[in-house]
Amino acid sequence: MPLRLRPNDPTFYDLFTESANHLVDGARILAELLGSTAGSGLAASHQIAAQMKDAEHAADETTHSIIRRVNSTFVTPFDREDIYRLASDLDDVMDFMEEAVDTVHLFNLEKLPEEVAEQIEVLQRAAQLTAETMPRLRTMKDLAEYWIEINRLENTGDAVHRRIIAKLFSGEYDALTVMKLKTVVDLLEAAIDAFEHVANTVEQIAVKES
Amino acid sequence: MPLRLRPNDPTFYDLFTESANHLVDGARILAELLGSTAGSGLAASHQIAAQMKDAEHAADETTHSIIRRVNSTFVTPFDREDIYRLASDLDDVMDFMEEAVDTVHLFNLEKLPEEVAEQIEVLQRAAQLTAETMPRLRTMKDLAEYWIEINRLENTGDAVHRRIIAKLFSGEYDALTVMKLKTVVDLLEAAIDAFEHVANTVEQIAVKES
Amino acid sequence: MPLRLRPNDPTFYDLFTESANHLVDGARILAELLGSTAGSGLAASHQIAAQMKDAEHAADETTHSIIRRVNSTFVTPFDREDIYRLASDLDDVMDFMEEAVDTVHLFNLEKLPEEVAEQIEVLQRAAQLTAETMPRLRTMKDLAEYWIEINRLENTGDAVHRRIIAKLFSGEYDALTVMKLKTVVDLLEAAIDAFEHVANTVEQIAVKES
Repeated sequence: MPLRLRPNDPTFYDLFTESANHLVDGARILAELLGSTAGSGLAASHQIAAQMKDAEHAADETTHSIIRRVNSTFVTPFDREDIYRLASDLDDVMDFMEEAVDTVHLFNLEKLPEEVAEQIEVLQRAAQLTAETMPRLRTMKDLAEYWIEINRLENTGDAVHRRIIAKLFSGEYDALTVMKLKTVVDLLEAAIDAFEHVANTVEQIAVKES
Repeated sequence: MPLRLRPNDPTFYDLFTESANHLVDGARILAELLGSTAGSGLAASHQIAAQMKDAEHAADETTHSIIRRVNSTFVTPFDREDIYRLASDLDDVMDFMEEAVDTVHLFNLEKLPEEVAEQIEVLQRAAQLTAETMPRLRTMKDLAEYWIEINRLENTGDAVHRRIIAKLFSGEYDALTVMKLKTVVDLLEAAIDAFEHVANTVEQIAVKES
Repeated sequence: MPLRLRPNDPTFYDLFTESANHLVDGARILAELLGSTAGSGLAASHQIAAQMKDAEHAADETTHSIIRRVNSTFVTPFDREDIYRLASDLDDVMDFMEEAVDTVHLFNLEKLPEEVAEQIEVLQRAAQLTAETMPRLRTMKDLAEYWIEINRLENTGDAVHRRIIAKLFSGEYDALTVMKLKTVVDLLEAAIDAFEHVANTVEQIAVKES
């Protein structure tokens, strides 16, 4: 593979955008899961877990492409370590979303607290916003509004998570069910937090490059 | 903002001391929470959660001041990455303490196992010691006694945590109560561990600079 | 202590091998624990927890030797940060194994799900393979087969872990017992994941040096 010497190799921006688009897919599959658990239940969750697995594999491919490119590129558009970190932060979001779906399937959960829909809506909006922002890394312009909005979404997610936890422990559910449901909603919360880590990394890159 | 060029800009030491002083406040608020849950219960925990939220916001402000100063300072007293890491380690302690208080409030816990007082005493001593140590980063002298004592406190905290966990699972509490209380004592243990991470970072800085 | 200037100071390889050999010991002690909990129970687990504590202390000593050597060596065989990270990754495996044994002892668990034997077998094979691989860091040859096999073992471990979790929540166990057993099997899973982190670090070092 020939070394790439142009200081602003465009493909890094393309690959980060591709990576964020996998998160848009993942969040959409999560929304379908919710439709599924509200309705026909288990069989659908099986199918959705398979779809999510595929989305996660596709995201892994993109992450590996980024890492291979860093290792075979002489001049990178920003610090190598920051590229690794951004790739890894994006990958973490997918891992949490995939684990959430997998857990629903593993525990044969047929119903989730209805507030989970609000967590997933936050994830869908964060994914969309992140995918729209990645191409702007090229010019480093208008990034502040992105990380401010992600912080706002994270606060919303946090408040929803607290409400769900309070509900889980309100006496409505038995202890084993609480443990199962808590595993799922904690993973969704972790996915939301992981979007904030992506935004923090973007902020640090922008500060360094400005 | 003018660039600061003096190699030993004093304000970093001041800011780290300020950051550690917020932890002294946080640990004191935790001690008040305990007074509260032993006695008048919920209403007080509501008030204390608000106080803790304020302390955490103040600590965040200090953390951001440190980061802004690193980014606008040409010559820093030690490696930029170590400054970020120390600031972030100090911030982590506050986050765990705040989450512990918030969890007590969220679960309307009116009583905690009495051994929790020992965890909070460890936190108060670690916070005090850390605040006294931060100004000594200027001379890098007499730091070893600090990290040795923090290690000792962490061992004490670990032993207390184990005793509380054994008690929680002894059959005295129902499963949901175990989950709630375990969340709180695990967060307090995480706060103690986070003080050890601060001490490890100080040790690594001292070794590098010596 | 005299500075070591030879670019390929052999002792780093020796020390990493020593560190990995402690993991072989740890995994063997885990296997004995299993023999113990299947049979004579608690008393034996007390003895095994003490053995594991010793193995962990020995591993800590090796980790500290590596760190001291990095700090007193002028030219290191690969990046200082990578040496720290590999030492720390190896140390993490031991910490998780030690905590698993300690938890069995703390909760007086007299019986573990029989599938735990499969987790421990994965740990024994990963430890053996890692110990055999460390000396090969000197030549950086034939490392790919190592990290491919560790990935395969991690996948096996993951599948076993999922089966155990499904069993724990199947209704066979009461909630408190589920919490206790889940703590143990999650720690064993974390130890397996930690072997994968070791392999990832080795892979990154190999890519950088090639």
